[in-house]
Amino acid sequence: MAVRVFDQRQMFKRSLKKPDGRAMYLYSRHPIADLRAPAPDDGTPFAPNPHLRWHPLRGEWIAYAGHRQHRTFLPPAEYNPLAPTRDASHPTEVPSGEYDVAVFENRFPTLYGGAHDPPKEIVETRPARGACEVVVYTKDVRASLGSLPLWNVEMVVDVWADRTRELGMRDDVQYVFPFENRGVEVGVTLHHPHGQIYAYPFVPPMAERELGEMLACYERTGRGLLATYTESELADGRRIVYAGSRAVAYVPACARWAYETWVLPLRPVPRLSELSANERADLARGLKTVLLKLDGLFARPMPYVMAIHQAPMDGLGHLEAHVHIEIYPYLRMPNRVKYLAGSEIGAGVFTADTYPEDKAEELRRVEVSID
Amino acid sequence: MAVRVFDQRQMFKRSLKKPDGRAMYLYSRHPIADLRAPAPDDGTPFAPNPHLRWHPLRGEWIAYAGHRQHRTFLPPAEYNPLAPTRDASHPTEVPSGEYDVAVFENRFPTLYGGAHDPPKEIVETRPARGACEVVVYTKDVRASLGSLPLWNVEMVVDVWADRTRELGMRDDVQYVFPFENRGVEVGVTLHHPHGQIYAYPFVPPMAERELGEMLACYERTGRGLLATYTESELADGRRIVYAGSRAVAYVPACARWAYETWVLPLRPVPRLSELSANERADLARGLKTVLLKLDGLFARPMPYVMAIHQAPMDGLGHLEAHVHIEIYPYLRMPNRVKYLAGSEIGAGVFTADTYPEDKAEELRRVEVSID
Repeated sequence: MAVRVFDQRQMFKRSLKKPDGRAMYLYSRHPIADLRAPAPDDGTPFAPNPHLRWHPLRGEWIAYAGHRQHRTFLPPAEYNPLAPTRDASHPTEVPSGEYDVAVFENRFPTLYGGAHDPPKEIVETRPARGACEVVVYTKDVRASLGSLPLWNVEMVVDVWADRTRELGMRDDVQYVFPFENRGVEVGVTLHHPHGQIYAYPFVPPMAERELGEMLACYERTGRGLLATYTESELADGRRIVYAGSRAVAYVPACARWAYETWVLPLRPVPRLSELSANERADLARGLKTVLLKLDGLFARPMPYVMAIHQAPMDGLGHLEAHVHIEIYPYLRMPNRVKYLAGSEIGAGVFTADTYPEDKAEELRRVEVSID
Repeated sequence: MAVRVFDQRQMFKRSLKKPDGRAMYLYSRHPIADLRAPAPDDGTPFAPNPHLRWHPLRGEWIAYAGHRQHRTFLPPAEYNPLAPTRDASHPTEVPSGEYDVAVFENRFPTLYGGAHDPPKEIVETRPARGACEVVVYTKDVRASLGSLPLWNVEMVVDVWADRTRELGMRDDVQYVFPFENRGVEVGVTLHHPHGQIYAYPFVPPMAERELGEMLACYERTGRGLLATYTESELADGRRIVYAGSRAVAYVPACARWAYETWVLPLRPVPRLSELSANERADLARGLKTVLLKLDGLFARPMPYVMAIHQAPMDGLGHLEAHVHIEIYPYLRMPNRVKYLAGSEIGAGVFTADTYPEDKAEELRRVEVSID
């Protein structure tokens, strides 16, 4: 049965199981009829067993998912596994029917709740527990997150919040990371609009680093680092791309990618699941504004990585944390990709050829229509 | 006048100034005649003024070199700025004459000793002092670092050692980072075999992280982390790609790239400049072996980032540090690039589809001839 999960804005959810055992969740603003969750039936069994290895020099976990290389799945060119199933003899990953957003467990996950028995190696190993989920934003293959109607973007944000809450309750999950890889320049070959959620069994290095800086500021000043920083950006004003009543977007003064943009709630809320419905709605509006501006910049879809950073799901308050969306656009000019090379990859030092002020001004000038 | 810089192996060096004021160093096994250092004369002045901005969330410096985008330099397709100058009316960056390896200050540097007066921003800013140097390995445009004769690879290692020593003496340099970006997949458009050296005015984040882990191990056990780890690799044996008398190369058990390989001296020496001539020679042999195997793997030049990690140039002993070369090959299959996407870029968690043991075995099987 579908249940209403958010009081302030109607959202219905139906939890299903695919024939191969994977979980699936359908979301809609309307009650969802009883649907069957399909799965591609090419004979490839669902038997992931990823593991983690400790990198002693970097002090971090690396995930190994050897089963991913054994994909036997060679679909015909026109087959889109994220489009609703039309023909029962060629099931996709999602059913046809009345729903808006679909979430399901990745068939070739890097993190898996059932992972067990890692090989013994000279470095510490562990089962790569946690989860990898796919978030299908819409049934329309020609859409993109930015081009969706505002209510649909809001629903995606609501779904991220719901998945954060639900995945965060699992014993094997420490951190929930919704993200999107978009464009062939980012290595994406599947063009149906979708994102992903990785639920890690540890706090990832970049989140750890940010949370460390945030905690140091909070302990020193009693205020959140990102809230303080955002006030400076609003006071400066030159890099603001969206200023809403509850959310803001800007190219930060310390942008690493030419058109890097952050979208965040004004109130320092640690996690997506703790935002109010109104805050999620304004966050969606800010996000849609930024994504449309990025696509308008060079009159072509902007390839990007979108990363959502929030507090760990460890039962603690994390008053220092402030959930935010970081968008890393891969183009620095109409047809020039920003390559990460020696300095970035080998030393961790980002180098930029452009100034955030100039790039923000370009984004500010792109006119977009939201409603 | 050219001076002999290493006692154990003859190397001559001549220090020159280009017409635009940039420094140039020529190296050879033989005395170098008096040569003029050329510079492209397209009218673009040499006037870099890069600056650093502090990224408060990541706790790191970002380098902004706005002058790089104003390059007016549009050479004809056949013009190779790293080839010896043939025609005085079209000077390149390097002279013709009897020398082997050339080093010069980058014309569009991200770090520059003369940087001054950064703009005031809402984040802390600083002049991006330090240096960016280009290392031209050979005069032969068709060569590559791996395909050079062994004596020439040795000379490149000797040059890295000399540049580390010399740059490290500067007040504005905290860390010397020799590296190479190779291949269009890494964003390289200039095919003449060359590498770069960045001399940072701070210890870069990845070095800081490694040195932190190394120091913790040294304080706990009295032994170096990388020496201990390398012993485990040698004892295991499955991932060893080169085992010399003074240097070793292996695919680490915690490899992040499919064919990631480390090349290092067996003795835990903190910096290139502290290696003996024999250690540098065996390091060169190990490096050449690995690079030839990488090119042999798919019978095509392997695109890669090569990063050299060593101790900071801060006057301290750094007994915990152990200089090593990390090679990150960008191909995971004959025509498949490893893209860094959401998990790597947004969370800092590397995901691999293959196992280091299998990839090391493939590299071990590639036969190469060194002498």
